[in-house]
Amino acid sequence: MTSFVPVPKGSDFPLENLPYGVFSTRDNSQKRVCVAIGEHVLDLAAVSQLYPQNVQAALQSESLNALMGLGYEAWNVVRTRTTELLTKNSPLEQNSTLVKSAIIPQSECQMHLPANIGDYTDFYSSIYHATNVGIMFRSKENALMPNWKHLPVGYHGRASSVVVSGTPIRRPYGQTIPVENAAPFFGPCRLLDFELEMAFFVGGPETQLGERVPVEQAWKRIFGFTLMNDWSARDIQKWEYVPLGPFTAKNLGTTISPWVVPVAALEPFLVPNYPQDPEVFPYLKHTQPFNFDINLFVDLKPENQEPTTICKSNYRHLYWTAAQQLAHHTITGCNVRPGDLMASGTISGETEDSFGSMLELCWKGTKSIQLKGGDSRKFLQDGDEVIIRGYCEKDGLRIGFGKCADKIFCIERSVPCTFEIAKNIEHCLFTGLEDVLSESLIPNNNGRF
Amino acid sequence: MTSFVPVPKGSDFPLENLPYGVFSTRDNSQKRVCVAIGEHVLDLAAVSQLYPQNVQAALQSESLNALMGLGYEAWNVVRTRTTELLTKNSPLEQNSTLVKSAIIPQSECQMHLPANIGDYTDFYSSIYHATNVGIMFRSKENALMPNWKHLPVGYHGRASSVVVSGTPIRRPYGQTIPVENAAPFFGPCRLLDFELEMAFFVGGPETQLGERVPVEQAWKRIFGFTLMNDWSARDIQKWEYVPLGPFTAKNLGTTISPWVVPVAALEPFLVPNYPQDPEVFPYLKHTQPFNFDINLFVDLKPENQEPTTICKSNYRHLYWTAAQQLAHHTITGCNVRPGDLMASGTISGETEDSFGSMLELCWKGTKSIQLKGGDSRKFLQDGDEVIIRGYCEKDGLRIGFGKCADKIFCIERSVPCTFEIAKNIEHCLFTGLEDVLSESLIPNNNGRF
Repeated sequence: MTSFVPVPKGSDFPLENLPYGVFSTRDNSQKRVCVAIGEHVLDLAAVSQLYPQNVQAALQSESLNALMGLGYEAWNVVRTRTTELLTKNSPLEQNSTLVKSAIIPQSECQMHLPANIGDYTDFYSSIYHATNVGIMFRSKENALMPNWKHLPVGYHGRASSVVVSGTPIRRPYGQTIPVENAAPFFGPCRLLDFELEMAFFVGGPETQLGERVPVEQAWKRIFGFTLMNDWSARDIQKWEYVPLGPFTAKNLGTTISPWVVPVAALEPFLVPNYPQDPEVFPYLKHTQPFNFDINLFVDLKPENQEPTTICKSNYRHLYWTAAQQLAHHTITGCNVRPGDLMASGTISGETEDSFGSMLELCWKGTKSIQLKGGDSRKFLQDGDEVIIRGYCEKDGLRIGFGKCADKIFCIERSVPCTFEIAKNIEHCLFTGLEDVLSESLIPNNNGRF
Repeated sequence: MTSFVPVPKGSDFPLENLPYGVFSTRDNSQKRVCVAIGEHVLDLAAVSQLYPQNVQAALQSESLNALMGLGYEAWNVVRTRTTELLTKNSPLEQNSTLVKSAIIPQSECQMHLPANIGDYTDFYSSIYHATNVGIMFRSKENALMPNWKHLPVGYHGRASSVVVSGTPIRRPYGQTIPVENAAPFFGPCRLLDFELEMAFFVGGPETQLGERVPVEQAWKRIFGFTLMNDWSARDIQKWEYVPLGPFTAKNLGTTISPWVVPVAALEPFLVPNYPQDPEVFPYLKHTQPFNFDINLFVDLKPENQEPTTICKSNYRHLYWTAAQQLAHHTITGCNVRPGDLMASGTISGETEDSFGSMLELCWKGTKSIQLKGGDSRKFLQDGDEVIIRGYCEKDGLRIGFGKCADKIFCIERSVPCTFEIAKNIEHCLFTGLEDVLSESLIPNNNGRF
C-alpha cells in the first residue's frame, strides 16, 4: 500500500500510521485537525467533505476532542477513509487544487496541543522504575509497596501545565530542604529531572459520575498514544510531598509530543501483557493483549552541542496495561471525558541503559552520565534539551511517534541555578540526596515524617 | 440600601451579597449567568444590555468563566451596576416587562456548576485538622509534618468529578485492606466520610507557564468563594495512597454549592490572618488581611429523618490564606486559568464540635455521633444526606452561601454496603482502623511502607 505523498525511507509516518495532530500555518492561524504522512500533513478540515457526514463536524473542529468523543466505530471510519484518500490513484490525488491546499509540508506547520485536556492523570506502572526507586530509598527486599502489584498506583496531575513539544520549560524556584532536619531553603531547583513516559488520550462519549469503564471494554476508549516528558523537580518534591503527593514539583510543565498515534496503527506491535502475579481482582483482569513493543529513546542535548542518547527503553516494560489503568481510574465512579490524558509513569526497563530518569541513570547522584561533547551530568542544566523519541518496527514497517523535545531555561540569571554551578551547596545537597524525594521515597523512621 | 426584590429576614442573599450562579429553567434550558437576591435570581443575560459594553458578552455566557477572566476591575463594574439595578426605584424596577422576564423565583431554577473547572486543587490548610489527624495517627508531639508551617500543603484533584449541590453520590467500590498486612479486599467503601471545605474560583486573565502570581496581588485574582464537600473513602484511601497521594478515594465526587460569593461581599467580615510562626518565605508574605469570619455548619440527615447539626466551624481557622495558596501554587511556574478551583482542605476548629469530618468527630471510630432520630453514626450510611451551610453575620448584615447538600446512594443493593450493616467485618475493620488512611497517616515503621 503506497501513498501518493512521498514517504522517505525510515520516516515515522508511513500510510500505515496516520497519527493525528492539531496545526496552524503562517497563512492560516486557525487551528485545524490533521494527520501526518511522510514529511507532510493532510489538513482534515480541508478534505472533510470527502468523509461520511457524521464525522465531518469533528474533522472541522479546532481540537481532537470531538473526534475522540465520537468513539471507536467512528475512528475506524475516519481511518479507513483517510487511508483511501492518501493511497496512490485516489480521487484526492486527482484533485490537484485540493491536494495543493490540503497537503502541507510539516516544516510550514506550527503544531499545537492535540486536545483540550480536561484532566490529566499520571500512573506509576513500570515495575523496574518502581523497584529502582524502592531499592534506592528503602532496600531490595522491600522495594515495592504492598499495594503496587494489586492496583495501578496513580495520582491526579495538573492539566493546564501540559504543553506541546517545543515549549521552553523554566527552571522552577521553590522550597527545598538541602540539609535533613535543618531549615528549608528558597531558591532554584537544583535537581531537575526528566521522566520518560507515554500517555494515552481517552475517547468515546463522556461517562457519568458513578459510572465505571469495564476493563474488557476499556481498550475501545483509548484513542491513541503520545510521548511524554514529566519534568520533575526532585529537591522540591522531596520537601513538599508528604503527605499528599507531588504538587509544585510537577506542575512546572509536562511536555507531550504533537502526534497521537491511533491504537489501530499499533496493532501489528501487540505483545503479551506483562505477567501479573499475584492474580489481580476481576475488575482489572482482561484476556486480550494490550501491551505494545514500542522502542523509546531519550537524548540529552546541551546547548550548542550534539545530542547523546542516554536511555533506550520500551513501552512493553509496563506492568499495568492502559486498559487496566482506565478501569482502575473509574472503579470508584470517576467520570471521564474525551481528551482526558493518562500517562504511564516513568518507563524504565531492566538494564541500566534503559532507566527513564536521571535519578535512576545516575543512581541518585552517585554517578555521572558522560556526554559526547565531553560534559557530564547528574541532573539537568540550563540550556539542556531533552528529546524523547519512539517507534515500533517489524518486517519493514515502522510506526513512529515523532519527538517530544523541550529545553530548560532560567530567567533569573543572576542566581546560580544549576547543580554544577552551585559548587558551594554541592556537599549539603548530596548529603541530603540520600533522601531526595522520589515518587516512592519512604519517610525516615525518626518519627517526624 | 434596599432592593425592590423582597429579601426575607434571615435570607442568605440580601442586596449586599449578590452571589453568582449559573441556572436554567424548565421553559428555557439554556444555561445563564445570574445573581441571587432574596428568594429570586436576576438573570444577567436578560439585563446584559444595561451594563457597560465590555462586560456584556461575559454576562451572556453560559458559564462564569468569561466574567471570571475579565478580572478585578470588571467585577467591580458589574457588581456596582447590579446593585444599582436591584435597588428600589431603579430603572429596572420601572421596566415591568423586563422585571418579569429577568427576576425568577429560585424555586423555578435548576442550578448548574458555576464554571467549567479547568483544574481543581485541594489544600490542607486548617492547622486543627492537620493536627488532629497527626495526633490520631502519630502522636501529639509530632502531629504536624515538618513542611506544614512552611508551605500550604496541597495536591491536584480531579476536575471532572466536581459536581454541583444536589447531585447524588454513589457509594464507591474499591480495594481496601481490612486487616493490616493481609490480602486486600474488593468491595464497597465502608468508611465513607465528608470533609467540610470552602473553595475559591481563580479569576483574571490566564497566566503563562513559567509565570507566578505574586502573593500581594493574589487577592485580586480571587473571584469568590463556595462551600465544598470533599467526599472521602477512608478505607480505599488508606490502601491506595502510598506513595503518590489520594486518588480514587477522592474522585468519586466533590460537591460544591451553586453560589459563588464575591470577595467584595465578604469584605465587612475580614479578620486578621492566622498568626504564622515560623515566619514564612517572602513569596508567601502578605500584609493585608485576607481571612474571613464565616460560620460553617454540617448537618447530617438520614433518609426520612430530621437533620442533626454535627459540626460548627469557621473559615477563620485556616492557617494559610487563599492568597498564599494561590502564590504557592504558581511558585514553580504553574499556569492558572479563570475557573480553576482551589479548596481549603477540611476546616476544623479547635473544639470537638468544630471538627470537619467524621474521622475527627468520631476520632477514627472510637466514638459515635448521636443523631436526633435516635440513630448514631461513625461513618456515613446509604441514604444519608450531608448538608453544609455557611454565612457571615455582623451588625444585622448576613451574607450567606446557601447550601451544599448531597445524598449517598448505593446501586449494588444486594451487597452489604454500609458499615453498620456489615457487622461481620466490623471487627477487622476497626482493628485496621488504627491505621485508617487519613490524609496524613504516617506509614508504619515496619519497613514495608
